[in-house]
Amino acid sequence: MTRTNTMAPMKILDPELNQTDRIIELHRGGKIEVCLKTPLETREDLSMAYTPGVARVCLAVHADPERSFELTIRRNTVAVVSDGSAVLGLGNIGPEAAMPVMEGKCMLFKAFAGVDAFPICLDTQDVDEIVRTCVYLAPTFGGINLEDISSPRCVEIERRLIERLEIPVFHDDQHGTAVVVLAALRNALKIVQKQLADIRVAISGAGAAGAAVARLLQSVGCRRIVLCDRNGAIGRHRKLDGNSVKRWIAENTNPEDIAGTLSDAVRGADVFIGVSGPGLLKVEDVKRMAAEPVVFALANPDPEIDPQAALPYARVMATGRSDYPNQINNVLCFPGLFRGMLDVRARRVTESMKIAAAAAIAEVIPEDELRPDCIVPSVFDPRVATGVARAVARAAVEAGVAAAGRDHS
Amino acid sequence: MTRTNTMAPMKILDPELNQTDRIIELHRGGKIEVCLKTPLETREDLSMAYTPGVARVCLAVHADPERSFELTIRRNTVAVVSDGSAVLGLGNIGPEAAMPVMEGKCMLFKAFAGVDAFPICLDTQDVDEIVRTCVYLAPTFGGINLEDISSPRCVEIERRLIERLEIPVFHDDQHGTAVVVLAALRNALKIVQKQLADIRVAISGAGAAGAAVARLLQSVGCRRIVLCDRNGAIGRHRKLDGNSVKRWIAENTNPEDIAGTLSDAVRGADVFIGVSGPGLLKVEDVKRMAAEPVVFALANPDPEIDPQAALPYARVMATGRSDYPNQINNVLCFPGLFRGMLDVRARRVTESMKIAAAAAIAEVIPEDELRPDCIVPSVFDPRVATGVARAVARAAVEAGVAAAGRDHS
Repeated sequence: MTRTNTMAPMKILDPELNQTDRIIELHRGGKIEVCLKTPLETREDLSMAYTPGVARVCLAVHADPERSFELTIRRNTVAVVSDGSAVLGLGNIGPEAAMPVMEGKCMLFKAFAGVDAFPICLDTQDVDEIVRTCVYLAPTFGGINLEDISSPRCVEIERRLIERLEIPVFHDDQHGTAVVVLAALRNALKIVQKQLADIRVAISGAGAAGAAVARLLQSVGCRRIVLCDRNGAIGRHRKLDGNSVKRWIAENTNPEDIAGTLSDAVRGADVFIGVSGPGLLKVEDVKRMAAEPVVFALANPDPEIDPQAALPYARVMATGRSDYPNQINNVLCFPGLFRGMLDVRARRVTESMKIAAAAAIAEVIPEDELRPDCIVPSVFDPRVATGVARAVARAAVEAGVAAAGRDHS
Repeated sequence: MTRTNTMAPMKILDPELNQTDRIIELHRGGKIEVCLKTPLETREDLSMAYTPGVARVCLAVHADPERSFELTIRRNTVAVVSDGSAVLGLGNIGPEAAMPVMEGKCMLFKAFAGVDAFPICLDTQDVDEIVRTCVYLAPTFGGINLEDISSPRCVEIERRLIERLEIPVFHDDQHGTAVVVLAALRNALKIVQKQLADIRVAISGAGAAGAAVARLLQSVGCRRIVLCDRNGAIGRHRKLDGNSVKRWIAENTNPEDIAGTLSDAVRGADVFIGVSGPGLLKVEDVKRMAAEPVVFALANPDPEIDPQAALPYARVMATGRSDYPNQINNVLCFPGLFRGMLDVRARRVTESMKIAAAAAIAEVIPEDELRPDCIVPSVFDPRVATGVARAVARAAVEAGVAAAGRDHS
């Protein structure tokens, strides 16, 4: 449609600009747009896609609202919802400033898995109001991806939305991280020849992401997990304030009730997982881990330990950064996960679906290609999203959360 | 991006299908999609559009949230919000069933004016909740187009949102209709050589659309307007229930306090405007209008009077249908209106902007081409949206509601 092009604002990237300028230029006018899937050039087009023809489709959906998953964008569209309260490492920067991240997320959904995603940045940080708003928005969407909402509010928001809605709700900062960590850990353990049931894991960071990692590891048989916040190991011994996430951690992890600092918790551990902040893990700590230690230092952009300093002592090292090997990046999970869920009209995300997603990511690397610096596939490997989508769809059907007997072709 | 194409659901239209089937097929999976405006194929692309580069853009917007109108999709994106309470002529069919119409509307925004629009169908019909939700959604959007919300609720929702928000809020069923009626009426009056200030207008339909038409006609100097509901002419003589729209009509129109039926109100009128239901205007009524009567019978799909029956007696006849001459279609207004508002970052819609839009639509037809069967341009005439956008942008600047001094290129 030539008309569209002449009226839409143009985006020109001048290669002469410095990188900061180029990033600003690239963002001018936003990074995503809404496109027509069917032309609108003749009276007949208009009468089929709009009035009067559209009325028949409205009546078909009115007779059976479930058909909205077949005859509207709900079939393939996810809301990326944030309140801007915990954006990247930038903190509580508010909804307008969160938009560039959410737009980027929507780009990833489309580029990696053909999922249409739309950013929704809300001008409220009240838990009740966010829940209410998402419930009202649900008829438009086939799923909700919560993003960059601070802990522990994000956990309550997700829990209440899962209770209220018949579309999958997934807080990526929690479960996307957990899925990719599990994928990486599966492959790392093959290299060091240890079993999930046998290892001891120390996690730095007792927010929603740390707790989600712990929960997912537990669901695959890993029991000896200790989480630490800035005051040290969390367990039944600790006096905790009203933070519901930390209370869950105290009651459900650390069966030996290990006390002390992060260094104490890491001593003798097989695996370190950092979802906290820069520099919290010392080289001395790594030296005191069990044999062939696995270190995932995921704080971004500055990891819990300098990868160069840790590498002589860690058998397997992973970070969240793209400039080191083994990037633990949520984009390995969420596009394929939602692709699979939309394809079978999953009503919610089960633990079994997350485990299947992790296995699918891990399996992209054949066993004979596994190396300490190659435990996770590249984010650009097209086998990741297709594999995750297939595995998640199958797991949803097996879990009985997929709407059966519907034609979603 | 090949990967996207292989994973996205395909849409195939089989020309062998009958029209109902073809319409259903065309809607399968929805009619719009979210597309990337910039590629996401390399690590550098990813680091500029997403982490870590995006953080600089977030900080720029955080430092000055007004820059969200420059650096996010807010620059060019409108929410098309409905609660599904008054969809087309279908009534209260609910949010899921309203989606096909809202998607169609979003297609029109893009195809006719390059505006990115996204449908939001809300699972609530409570006025307070709809207002609250739209306020929360505002950081994502550069404007809100309310659609197919029943009267008088739509009027209150629009009024309260205009008070609360610094982006334009426009209820198309009211003001879009009013603008296009005014455009058509301007040209019709040139043919019959009458002046707005002199004519008497009878309006059938005392909902939000009828009231908006009356208000806009008043603002251009037309005073003698009588609106009728199913109980006849509304004026100070009428006992009215709590309907705020009808109270406004009683207090602000019908200066002569004409009473009686619609037939009584139409007698001697220069112009009939129907925004009501099928068959309410009789041929005998048209015969009793003033000389050279103008009849706009806009009920859709079945007008207030059969155009074939009315045509021998009406000097100028218009309907809402595409299969008769003079189609009064809101699509002549809203795409260009929002294009113009987004281009100058208008904070709200003023009466002067609506009047400018109407004039721009009317002026697409040169005076020497005006004919009784050609008073409004075709919806496919590309001059309409560009003309409306230019006129509205200018009017917004003149009204002082455009954010000045910003580069929105």
